[in-house]
Amino acid sequence: MARVVGLGPDALRRSNLSTVLRLLHGEGRATRAELTALTGLNRSTVAALVRELNDHGLVTEGDAVATGAPGRPSPMVSVRTDRVAVLAVDIKVDSIAVATMTLGGTRLGQQRVRRDRHDTTVDATLDVLEELARDSLDALPRRQRLIGIGIAVAGLVRHPDGMVDLGPNLGWSQVPIGELLKARLRRRVPVTVGNDGDTGALAERVHGAGRGVEHLIYLSGEVGVGGGIISSGRPLTGSMGYAGEVGHVTIDADGDRCGCGNTGCWELLIGERAVLRATGRLGDGGQDALTEMLLAAGDGEPEARRGLAEIGRWTGIGLASLVNLFDPQRIVLGGLHAELHPFLVDAATSELRSRSLVATRSGAEIVPAAFGIDSSLVGAGEAALQPLLDDPTGTSAPAPSMPAHALG
Amino acid sequence: MARVVGLGPDALRRSNLSTVLRLLHGEGRATRAELTALTGLNRSTVAALVRELNDHGLVTEGDAVATGAPGRPSPMVSVRTDRVAVLAVDIKVDSIAVATMTLGGTRLGQQRVRRDRHDTTVDATLDVLEELARDSLDALPRRQRLIGIGIAVAGLVRHPDGMVDLGPNLGWSQVPIGELLKARLRRRVPVTVGNDGDTGALAERVHGAGRGVEHLIYLSGEVGVGGGIISSGRPLTGSMGYAGEVGHVTIDADGDRCGCGNTGCWELLIGERAVLRATGRLGDGGQDALTEMLLAAGDGEPEARRGLAEIGRWTGIGLASLVNLFDPQRIVLGGLHAELHPFLVDAATSELRSRSLVATRSGAEIVPAAFGIDSSLVGAGEAALQPLLDDPTGTSAPAPSMPAHALG
Repeated sequence: MARVVGLGPDALRRSNLSTVLRLLHGEGRATRAELTALTGLNRSTVAALVRELNDHGLVTEGDAVATGAPGRPSPMVSVRTDRVAVLAVDIKVDSIAVATMTLGGTRLGQQRVRRDRHDTTVDATLDVLEELARDSLDALPRRQRLIGIGIAVAGLVRHPDGMVDLGPNLGWSQVPIGELLKARLRRRVPVTVGNDGDTGALAERVHGAGRGVEHLIYLSGEVGVGGGIISSGRPLTGSMGYAGEVGHVTIDADGDRCGCGNTGCWELLIGERAVLRATGRLGDGGQDALTEMLLAAGDGEPEARRGLAEIGRWTGIGLASLVNLFDPQRIVLGGLHAELHPFLVDAATSELRSRSLVATRSGAEIVPAAFGIDSSLVGAGEAALQPLLDDPTGTSAPAPSMPAHALG
Repeated sequence: MARVVGLGPDALRRSNLSTVLRLLHGEGRATRAELTALTGLNRSTVAALVRELNDHGLVTEGDAVATGAPGRPSPMVSVRTDRVAVLAVDIKVDSIAVATMTLGGTRLGQQRVRRDRHDTTVDATLDVLEELARDSLDALPRRQRLIGIGIAVAGLVRHPDGMVDLGPNLGWSQVPIGELLKARLRRRVPVTVGNDGDTGALAERVHGAGRGVEHLIYLSGEVGVGGGIISSGRPLTGSMGYAGEVGHVTIDADGDRCGCGNTGCWELLIGERAVLRATGRLGDGGQDALTEMLLAAGDGEPEARRGLAEIGRWTGIGLASLVNLFDPQRIVLGGLHAELHPFLVDAATSELRSRSLVATRSGAEIVPAAFGIDSSLVGAGEAALQPLLDDPTGTSAPAPSMPAHALG
């Protein structure tokens, strides 16, 4: 039999505190009247929950403000951005980024450094990360307490222990990156490791282009093509944390062999190499070639424009499959594809609508990520904030025995 | 802002009653001690919940039985199968089925009738259904109360109003089948309409080959190929109820045109016509040709065996994409593909493992549906039981204004 967890009164209180803090975290602030309307709880319950969150230093209550609606003015409740912080880390192939982040999604001390994609060993990565992280953490005000570290990685991340099982473009296999970074930084806080597509989807859903949307496909290109799915408001993890590998759906069964072992993967048709080739550049030109090509496309170069429309066509073909599977309200293009968005959106949308029965009905739009290349960084921070958002007073069961755990 | 529902004490009690009844419905019976262990609630709470369910005529408590574990013997609690019933309806292209179903998934008075696939109009369907349904309902014991009707349809079913937006192989468009059947039967009970792939997945998850599995892909062929996804224990619906159209992922972008408007859909490669052609039969031979071919395959006919291995190869190619997207624990083949399972499982598994990074790690197995062609029928009944399972005492908010609603 499967274990099914029943709810006791303590769990009920925690659940309601969590509901209110999550709302405030997503919105930044809301009046008590708005919180009452949004949660469906009664006024006195909301007042007590806000008081408890206030006592824990997580929110502040301001003066009552007129809401414009009938009834008395209602106090404005805001998340506090000066008490807790998490360290957000984003490990891509071409770059590494670090920031601290607090409630409401505010980021401080963000740095992203480019690196040589042929020198992405675990040690080289940790050396850079250690320096960046120390800078960020040193810049934190003293009274701001570090409560967690979140790491996004371009690779398959195992759930729930956060092991990077495989980072094909990093050349990583079986890397416990959470434990390794924690040891370097000597911080005794929980570490959460997630696939960069999954964290990117989370960031866009909570703070970005997917706000207010319960069903979302996030697609993001760097050297490879990854993604993440939000369904009914929840991240789709799959049984081991590996769900959402959108770059490795077969689009053309007789196509070229992919690094993943499959043939005709979507990544081969819309990834960086495909983009460079389609626009008449050398496939292995990397970041510099992309930057040049994007400038040329912006200036209207026909070869670049034609090539990107062709990439758009393949983007739409792949999205038709995904929309038929996930029936999303919105499709968010991140990373490289956020930059390509203006040049490929028309071709992609037209292909999607003509191919997908579901897209014709839902009218799901293709939009660029709000955070561009930083979606996965913001999502790493967001993942590290989850334990606090799940249990604002920190009174639930002790942390799991495995200190590094993946995005749930 | 999104509305987020907080939990009050009444909702807590309902939620716990629901948890206990769902456990018993899935298992048929369990001791109070087992219920306590499985829910994590304390013993006295479980005793009170069981008493309340008993008072509502939903469960019975038997004598205490020794559990084999330390501690006192614990009373055995069973669902009652003699009090409530739902009418389950399955509308396929080649056949129509009806049964009544009660708690624990027990079916009574089941009938399935074959029909001409070229005569599937709404009126013809309703004529057959009305007769079958009256037979089933007349056979119900008087004290067994009909609490709902669940309908599975081979088509796109809109959420939440249950409109059959499109049934391509039925030739249906915009059919409010729930309302129409209710009017014919003159029964004032809620009607739930769901896509047959979604209901099939639900049935296999709760009572069949996916029991105890939280992440499941269900694939089912009849004239078309459909399916349903269970992720983290919940059906994947998508924003409008159209998610899980697994037959319409592009596998071969340069392939033939599909009836759905796309090209190279998986359905064209593993659906009925493809199966008949690959095994050297006429593509439009239908049910009779399939039956003959399956008998021949069972007798070892080389042409049938080779053809089914080829279908297995394409099944594995498509499953590799799905496994990379959903990371399931198990893949259940239903309908036509349940019958094909023994002949294609080796080729499909081998192709899947060699192509999917995720399948290599999860070891997800391909198994036949427990209910064969009846998965969607059982799931239609299961969907109709959901309001009772969600709120065993029927005290929550009144029914939604739209009386027919889709599988949530």
